[in-house]
Amino acid sequence: MGKDFLYNEIANGIAGQIRRGVLKSGDRLPSVRMLCDKHAISMNTAKRVFQELEAQSLIDAKPQSGYFVSRLPYLKLPLPEVSRPSASANNNEPDELISKVYANMGNNDLTLFSVGVASGNLLPLAKLKKEIIQATRELRDGGTAYEPLQGNAKLRRMIAVRSLTWGGNLHENDLVTTNGGMNALSFCLMAVGKPGDTIAVESPAYPGTLRLALSLGFKVMELPTHPITGIEIDALKKAIPKINLCLLVPNFNTPLGGCIPDESKKEIVALLSKHHIPLIEDDIYGDLYFGPLRPKCCKSFDEEGNVLWCSSISKTLAPGYRVGWVAPGKYKDKLLKLKLMHSISSPSIMQEAVANFLATGKYDNHLRHLRRTLQDNYQNYVHAIAQYFPEGTKTSRPQGGLSIWVEFNKGIDTAELYDLAIKQRISISPGRMFTLQNQFENCMRLCIGLPWSAEIKSKLKQLGNLVKML
Amino acid sequence: MGKDFLYNEIANGIAGQIRRGVLKSGDRLPSVRMLCDKHAISMNTAKRVFQELEAQSLIDAKPQSGYFVSRLPYLKLPLPEVSRPSASANNNEPDELISKVYANMGNNDLTLFSVGVASGNLLPLAKLKKEIIQATRELRDGGTAYEPLQGNAKLRRMIAVRSLTWGGNLHENDLVTTNGGMNALSFCLMAVGKPGDTIAVESPAYPGTLRLALSLGFKVMELPTHPITGIEIDALKKAIPKINLCLLVPNFNTPLGGCIPDESKKEIVALLSKHHIPLIEDDIYGDLYFGPLRPKCCKSFDEEGNVLWCSSISKTLAPGYRVGWVAPGKYKDKLLKLKLMHSISSPSIMQEAVANFLATGKYDNHLRHLRRTLQDNYQNYVHAIAQYFPEGTKTSRPQGGLSIWVEFNKGIDTAELYDLAIKQRISISPGRMFTLQNQFENCMRLCIGLPWSAEIKSKLKQLGNLVKML
Repeated sequence: MGKDFLYNEIANGIAGQIRRGVLKSGDRLPSVRMLCDKHAISMNTAKRVFQELEAQSLIDAKPQSGYFVSRLPYLKLPLPEVSRPSASANNNEPDELISKVYANMGNNDLTLFSVGVASGNLLPLAKLKKEIIQATRELRDGGTAYEPLQGNAKLRRMIAVRSLTWGGNLHENDLVTTNGGMNALSFCLMAVGKPGDTIAVESPAYPGTLRLALSLGFKVMELPTHPITGIEIDALKKAIPKINLCLLVPNFNTPLGGCIPDESKKEIVALLSKHHIPLIEDDIYGDLYFGPLRPKCCKSFDEEGNVLWCSSISKTLAPGYRVGWVAPGKYKDKLLKLKLMHSISSPSIMQEAVANFLATGKYDNHLRHLRRTLQDNYQNYVHAIAQYFPEGTKTSRPQGGLSIWVEFNKGIDTAELYDLAIKQRISISPGRMFTLQNQFENCMRLCIGLPWSAEIKSKLKQLGNLVKML
Repeated sequence: MGKDFLYNEIANGIAGQIRRGVLKSGDRLPSVRMLCDKHAISMNTAKRVFQELEAQSLIDAKPQSGYFVSRLPYLKLPLPEVSRPSASANNNEPDELISKVYANMGNNDLTLFSVGVASGNLLPLAKLKKEIIQATRELRDGGTAYEPLQGNAKLRRMIAVRSLTWGGNLHENDLVTTNGGMNALSFCLMAVGKPGDTIAVESPAYPGTLRLALSLGFKVMELPTHPITGIEIDALKKAIPKINLCLLVPNFNTPLGGCIPDESKKEIVALLSKHHIPLIEDDIYGDLYFGPLRPKCCKSFDEEGNVLWCSSISKTLAPGYRVGWVAPGKYKDKLLKLKLMHSISSPSIMQEAVANFLATGKYDNHLRHLRRTLQDNYQNYVHAIAQYFPEGTKTSRPQGGLSIWVEFNKGIDTAELYDLAIKQRISISPGRMFTLQNQFENCMRLCIGLPWSAEIKSKLKQLGNLVKML
C-alpha cells in the first residue's frame, strides 16, 4: 500500500498542475526515466503514475514521443461508472436485437459504426496479396494438402518470437493455430468447460462470447468492470466459489477499451490458478495500444499453464483471412483433439501468407501506422461527441483497441436510437447487446475503425441530433 | 416385390453367362437403354440390374463407355459379411490407436495407405494457383474483409447449379459454406443434437465422426451395414425408438465404399422424416463414382427439410483449402448462428478461388480424370491383394470413393500389423479405428489415393508378407 500511496501522490501533484493550468493542453510531460530520477522511484511506479493520469484523461501517450497534456474535450466528457451487473448468472439473451444489428453488417451503403474492425484502406492490401501468391509458390502442392494439425510451423514461430514484446516467452510448440480468433475461443471453451459450468466474464462484454458460452450450456456470470482498469478483482474473488472458468479480454476489450494493470493481471492469474479455475485470455486487441508500450498479458504471469492465451490478426491485418491461434498451456492435448474433430486443420495458404508477412518488418511498420490512425480517430470521435451529443453524455477512455463506449442519461433507449439511425443509413451497436441482463439500455458502442472524414463527422453530428430528439 | 423379382431374374441370367464363360473378362455388356428395350423394363429396373451385377463384382462400369465383365481377381476375393455391431450404444473409443496412426499422417517418408485423400499429383495444382491469384484481385479489399455469414455467394450458386446432377435442385440460398466438410458435420451435430442424445451411424464408420459425436456427449449406436448397399434398413427401423438423430455417408462411405441404392435412400428419408429424426448426410465422396452415373443423395428425396446435406472439395480438389458447405434444410437459422458463434465466417479467398474453378468446365474435366485414376488404382490394388495376401482375405467392392476395406481371418490383429508395417515405412488404418466397439480387429482400410507405381505394388507385397507372418 506504500507504493500505492507514492504513485497516487505524484499523480495527484501533476493532475493539480494540469487542472490549475500550470501545465497546458499539448505540453510535454517528463519521460518515465526523468520521473524515476526526480522522485527516486522505480520504473514500475513511474509508469503507474502516467497510467493513472491517462486513466483520468488528463494526458495522452503518443507513440515514440512520450506523454502530453490532453486536448480539452476529454475533460468535459465524464467517465461511465463501474458496471454493476447482478451477482447471479443470467441468460436473458438479446437475440432479436443482435440479429437485427448483425444483418446490416455487410451493408456497405451504411456508415457502419457497428463493425469492430479496421477499414480496408487502413490495411496493407497490396503487400498481403503478394504474400498470398508467394504462399502458393512455397507450400507443398501449392497449399492444397492438409496442413499439420498444430498449424503452420513458420506462423507459430513468428508468434512465439513476437511474444517477447509482452513478456510471453512462448515456444512455437506451445501454439496451435485456428480458423480465426473466435474459433480459438470456441475450442478453449469446449476444452476447459462443460454444460452446466459457470463462466465469469467482464460486463459489458463482446456479444459473440456471451452467446457462445450460453450455447455451450454454460451459466454466465457478468462481473463489475471499471471502464479503465477492467474487471474488479474483489468481485472476482467473491465469485470464485461459484465459477468453473473465466474468460477475460484484459487489453482494450470491446466495448470499453480498458486495460487491466499489469499487477492486477498477475494477481488474477495467481488467484485463478490457486483455485484451479482455467483462464481463457482473449488478446486480439493487445497490439493496438495507444500508449508507448505493448501491455503484458495474463499469460505473461502464467507459471502453471492455466492460462489459454488466444489472439488473431483479424483486428490488425485481415479479418477475412481467418487466421487465429491459441497458447493453451496445459490444455494443449485437449485443444488439438478438438481442432482435429471440428475442423481437421486450417487453410494452409492463409497461414503461410500471414507468417511471411510477420517474418518481414512489415507488420510492425503497419501496426505503428494503424495505432496512430486509430488514436487520431478516437480523439476526433471524442471531439465530435463533445460537440454534438447532449450534455451528460459519458464516454469510456480506451487506451487502445477499436471502440468507444458511450453512456447517455437514463431514459435514452439505444435500441430505439438504432432504429432511427438506420433510417439515416447509420449503424450503431446498442448497449443491450453486450450483456445477458437488463442493463446498458442507455449505452452504445461506436467503432473507430473507419477512416476519419468530413462525412464521418457529419454522421456523428446526425447521430447526436437523433439522441437529442429521444 | 414383382419389380425385385424381375431385376433379379435378369441379373441372374447375365451372372450365369459370366460364370459359365459365355461372357468373358473384358466383354462389353448391353447398354442400359438396350436392356430396357430387350426386356421391356424401365430405366430404373435396368439400372438396378447393373447395380446388382456390379455389387457381385461381376461387372465394372467405365465412365463414358458402359459396363464390362470384370477382370478375374475380383471373383477370387470374397466379400466381407454384413457388419453385426452390438445393438446398444458403445463408447469404447480407440483413442491411443487413433493418436498413433494420426501422428504419422504428415510423415511423407512413409507410404501412407492411411490417408484418405487424393495425392497432390492427381490434383490440378497450377490451375488452382491461378484461381487463388484471381480471387485476390476480384474480392473487395483483396479478400481481407469478413465474408458474409452465409458464405461466398458465387460458390453457393455453383454448388446449387451442380446439385442438379444428383437431383438436389438446391438454390444458393439453401446453402451455408463452412471451413471444410468436417466443420459442416460439426455444426450439423450441434444444430440438431444435444448431450445425452443417441445418434445412429454406419458400422464401420469414419473415426472422426465417431469421436466428434462422443465429444459432444452423444451416445453412438452403430448399425449393421452391408459392404455394397450400406446401412441395413431393417436395423434402422428397429433402432428408431432409441435414436434422436442419424448420420449417414450414403455414397462411397469410408472405409467400405458402398452405395445405398436410390430406392433405399428414399425409404430412409421417409422413415426418419416420419419420426422427426434429423438426418445428417455426409456426401463428400459423392462425385467420386466409378459407375456411369452420379448417385443421388438422401437430400434428393427430402421434402420436409429434414436432411442436412454436407459436402466439400477436400476429397476431390484441395484438402488444404478447407472449403466445405451444408444445405441444412429447416435447420438453416440454427446453423448460421452456430457458424457465427464458432468461427464468424470462412476465409474469402479460398471460397472465391474454388467458386471460380467450379464456374469453368475445369472441375468436371478434372473429376472425370480423377475418377478414372481412382478406379484404375482400385483394380490394381485388388490385383495385388489377390496376388500377395493370404488365402481367405476378403475385400469390399467400392463403387466409388477413396478406400478399400480388407478383412483377414479371425486372429489376425491389424493393430499389430500396423506396428510391424510402420517399421517398414508403411502406414495402414487398423479396422478397430472405425468403431467404438470391440470389432474389426482383423480388418484394415487401404486408401487408393496414391498414384499407382511399381513401388506401391511392392509395398502392398511387403504388407501381404507381413500378414502371412502374423
